[in-house]
Amino acid sequence: MASSLKLVVIGGIAAGMKTACKTARLQPHANITVLEKDEIISYSGCGLPYFVSGVVHDREELFSTPTGVPRTPAFFEAVKNVKVRNRTEAVAINRANKTVEYRNLVDASTGSVPYDKLMLATGARPIVPPIPGVDLANVFTVKQVEDAERIQKALEGSETKKAVIIGGGLIGMEMAETLADCAFDVTVVEMLPRILPMLDAEMALLVEKHLDEQGIAVRTGVAVTALEGEGGRVAAAVCGNERLEADLVILAVGVRPNAELAANAGLEIGRLGGIQVDERMRTSDPDIFAAGDCVECNHLLTGKPCYSPLGSTANKQGRVAAMNICGEDDTLSGVLGSAVVKVCDFAVGCTGLTEKQAKQAGYDPISSLCPMPDRTHYYPGAKGVLLKLVADRSSGRVLGVQAVGPGEIAKRIDSAVAALTMGMTVEQLSKLDLCYAPPYASAMDNLITAANVLRNKMEGRMVGIASSEVKQKLDATEDFFLLDVRSPGEVQAAAISGAVNIPLGKLRAALDEVPADKPVVCFCQLSLRGYEAATILKAAGHEHVTVMDGGVAMWPYETVRSG
Amino acid sequence: MASSLKLVVIGGIAAGMKTACKTARLQPHANITVLEKDEIISYSGCGLPYFVSGVVHDREELFSTPTGVPRTPAFFEAVKNVKVRNRTEAVAINRANKTVEYRNLVDASTGSVPYDKLMLATGARPIVPPIPGVDLANVFTVKQVEDAERIQKALEGSETKKAVIIGGGLIGMEMAETLADCAFDVTVVEMLPRILPMLDAEMALLVEKHLDEQGIAVRTGVAVTALEGEGGRVAAAVCGNERLEADLVILAVGVRPNAELAANAGLEIGRLGGIQVDERMRTSDPDIFAAGDCVECNHLLTGKPCYSPLGSTANKQGRVAAMNICGEDDTLSGVLGSAVVKVCDFAVGCTGLTEKQAKQAGYDPISSLCPMPDRTHYYPGAKGVLLKLVADRSSGRVLGVQAVGPGEIAKRIDSAVAALTMGMTVEQLSKLDLCYAPPYASAMDNLITAANVLRNKMEGRMVGIASSEVKQKLDATEDFFLLDVRSPGEVQAAAISGAVNIPLGKLRAALDEVPADKPVVCFCQLSLRGYEAATILKAAGHEHVTVMDGGVAMWPYETVRSG
Repeated sequence: MASSLKLVVIGGIAAGMKTACKTARLQPHANITVLEKDEIISYSGCGLPYFVSGVVHDREELFSTPTGVPRTPAFFEAVKNVKVRNRTEAVAINRANKTVEYRNLVDASTGSVPYDKLMLATGARPIVPPIPGVDLANVFTVKQVEDAERIQKALEGSETKKAVIIGGGLIGMEMAETLADCAFDVTVVEMLPRILPMLDAEMALLVEKHLDEQGIAVRTGVAVTALEGEGGRVAAAVCGNERLEADLVILAVGVRPNAELAANAGLEIGRLGGIQVDERMRTSDPDIFAAGDCVECNHLLTGKPCYSPLGSTANKQGRVAAMNICGEDDTLSGVLGSAVVKVCDFAVGCTGLTEKQAKQAGYDPISSLCPMPDRTHYYPGAKGVLLKLVADRSSGRVLGVQAVGPGEIAKRIDSAVAALTMGMTVEQLSKLDLCYAPPYASAMDNLITAANVLRNKMEGRMVGIASSEVKQKLDATEDFFLLDVRSPGEVQAAAISGAVNIPLGKLRAALDEVPADKPVVCFCQLSLRGYEAATILKAAGHEHVTVMDGGVAMWPYETVRSG
Repeated sequence: MASSLKLVVIGGIAAGMKTACKTARLQPHANITVLEKDEIISYSGCGLPYFVSGVVHDREELFSTPTGVPRTPAFFEAVKNVKVRNRTEAVAINRANKTVEYRNLVDASTGSVPYDKLMLATGARPIVPPIPGVDLANVFTVKQVEDAERIQKALEGSETKKAVIIGGGLIGMEMAETLADCAFDVTVVEMLPRILPMLDAEMALLVEKHLDEQGIAVRTGVAVTALEGEGGRVAAAVCGNERLEADLVILAVGVRPNAELAANAGLEIGRLGGIQVDERMRTSDPDIFAAGDCVECNHLLTGKPCYSPLGSTANKQGRVAAMNICGEDDTLSGVLGSAVVKVCDFAVGCTGLTEKQAKQAGYDPISSLCPMPDRTHYYPGAKGVLLKLVADRSSGRVLGVQAVGPGEIAKRIDSAVAALTMGMTVEQLSKLDLCYAPPYASAMDNLITAANVLRNKMEGRMVGIASSEVKQKLDATEDFFLLDVRSPGEVQAAAISGAVNIPLGKLRAALDEVPADKPVVCFCQLSLRGYEAATILKAAGHEHVTVMDGGVAMWPYETVRSG
């Protein structure tokens, strides 16, 4: 047997521990050392919001195996044959000597450890925006188990029970739900025009509407310019002309890769600030690998670097790194940016490109909106899925799926992931043999229907119009005919001001009520009847007929209830 | 405008109504007539078991639109411009004259209707096994809304509250749950060695175990040879040496395509008895199309005909037929046999080929079993998914996925459908960027983990052994060492007789307790620790080490509880 491999891993959370343990299985005689500057290793950072709210009761659950064994250094030594030195910071990499210098954070002792192969899994750190007052007490980022515990204490000690969350991304959403669950008045402030940049604007608006319905306030297109304190503790956030009272502020404006150690060692850093790696997770030094939140990824649809700091990606990358460290050939060609997040009673998910991102990437995107229940509508418990499908107009290639709503969102996202990975067209997607039974799906699944609607648009059978455009026309009192073909009962429950109601079943007999000389926009609740109406009107000679994408179910603006 | 198309559709349930309505949208001036011999049209046959049990309250829900409008002939005429003649049986097709002869079942009048294009959507009928007593009262098949209502009445009038279900397929399972929900003692009798032939034996066994735990008896490998009556009503089923008391019997042994009308008209019928169609849903007569339960499909993985009588397939086929009827080009290249069914607290799903079917199709299949929670194990509500992944050993191509359990089964099946359709390999599957957040998935999703386990087997890092083989070895008291590396607490809860317990964390220090000269079979609860143990033993010089597929979680035989 060859002399045993010496692997040093810097970082003991997701990618680092995956690489260490997989290497130990591939080469049981390898000498593996993990250096981690913090106390707790191998924990689920993604679980922190649920620990803050008490949904997850015990901090140990965040770093325990499925059978309840805490993943401590002793556990890794005994079970995995991996030595973990926690509270030990790697301070420099000496590539010439192939050593890592470290400092013990408990006793301040220093030392160095030699490597044959080095793995960088240094993770990321939360961005702290440079605004006055971020150093006040009760201003938190959410990264470590200790952060979560500090937030829990602050929750208990809060007097105002008011919180401001700066940043409307994934962590911002999770913390908004968490704090609302803890009976806080929560305001989310997002500098961009909409929350959740993983979604197109009209989809993000639906989530903002849901937050509003849950009593969570949202401010978009405005920045927090200062935090004000009282006795050293935060008391308010200044946000445009507003002063938002809050004795708890969460900074959730994103994370930045910890790439300094790599940069100081002369390794290539990408344009997005992450360590550059190839598809084998090799850095510019063939003996140094990197994975997880500290590296940049390749986006499968743009072919360009992207930053995807997620536990799912970190674990896959860590495995690929281990395989290559041990001389096996394994690659990860890229990511799709798939994500899902729970936002109160909604799930919000996406994969691939938004329509906006697709445009930026040089595609000519076209999209469909499809609101539908997540199973047969007659089966108890059916819940809504509001889905957007994006494709490239010329090639027909599926580019992305976004979905929000109370129904089974993650299922529809995941069902499209292999399709996107393999370059499927919308037509191919519409033929997928997805499984069907009333408790789980409709005979035509949401994805299939969305694909069929998109085919109707791409093949010229249906002309869509975005709800935002309809809203603009209404606001500008443009001369057009807005035709609501729902039943009177549906109209009473939620009407769009300015629309005229002719139920679909009566339309053929009431064609003279639709002015022949005006553009007509048809809509219904979900969109099928709107499309039927457009077909009827076109057959009757109307030339300018469009169907409002997504119907009332995905209308993100105000509706009027009557009767 | 050309003279309007005359389309006649025979059959007004799923495929027929889809073709009629889609054609009406594509060609609003088309003259479309649907002939349906029964009263109720466009109903969800798949919903019948849930209507019997009262989960779905109102018969109208089964044939209403999502907004609650009953899909009656008047509805189709007013809204869709489709004429439906129900209670009207098509009795012959005259291909030379291009007419269909029909008989009105209400007044016995006859007539004929001309067509330019004809669509056959004649569906299927339940197979009635040729055994004495099937004509007794209270012996039912489950096909129409009226069947469901008759069964409801029989449930109310039952004296013994005992039922026998003949057939352990999809409908058999749904009716077993339904009748158990109605407080019946239920016995399912399946002639084949296992229920649910869509699953491999070890997966079907897990479902049989679940049925048993729910108090539903299962008899396999034995046929009902006669039904005995009392006063004209069924009283018992004779099944091998048993006489199963029951005043209600459900026949659920499958359906047979209604292809007689097509055959009598000289159209090609396939070897499986269904109407033969090409990928445009054209029969051997270019003016006659067919779709739904009356046709044979192409299996995407075998390239051979298969029979897939499902609402999901019928709807897709109906749309493709309509497109081609209207001169557009559209194809459906085949199906994967995807299916899902609710069986009490389990969902049971599959797509592609079982290991057995893969062998029959000429592949050299290899598989992995992966029991895992359906989300992060620490998130409340996590439930088990017991998954089997099948691939072709030489090409690495994914061939099938089966999953059973209380967790999110349909999601994992659907996530694999595009992968199977596009010919993905196991390695590609293991890299899918599936979405992740603790409430919805683990960082490494079940499918990803199953793919990684299978890669470990295919790439020679792990040798698996089936639980059935371990059971045989135990029953034959073969000389081998069965090593349980779980914690003592887990062993107390459910032990496999004959196994020796050395917890994984103590294995490295207890290597001398493992006999060097015997084959060793390692296992744990889910399988990761079993694999770790095998790695440790191999590194210590053991040569014959295998890991039991699926661990105790997927051990379908008896376990022993102690302490």
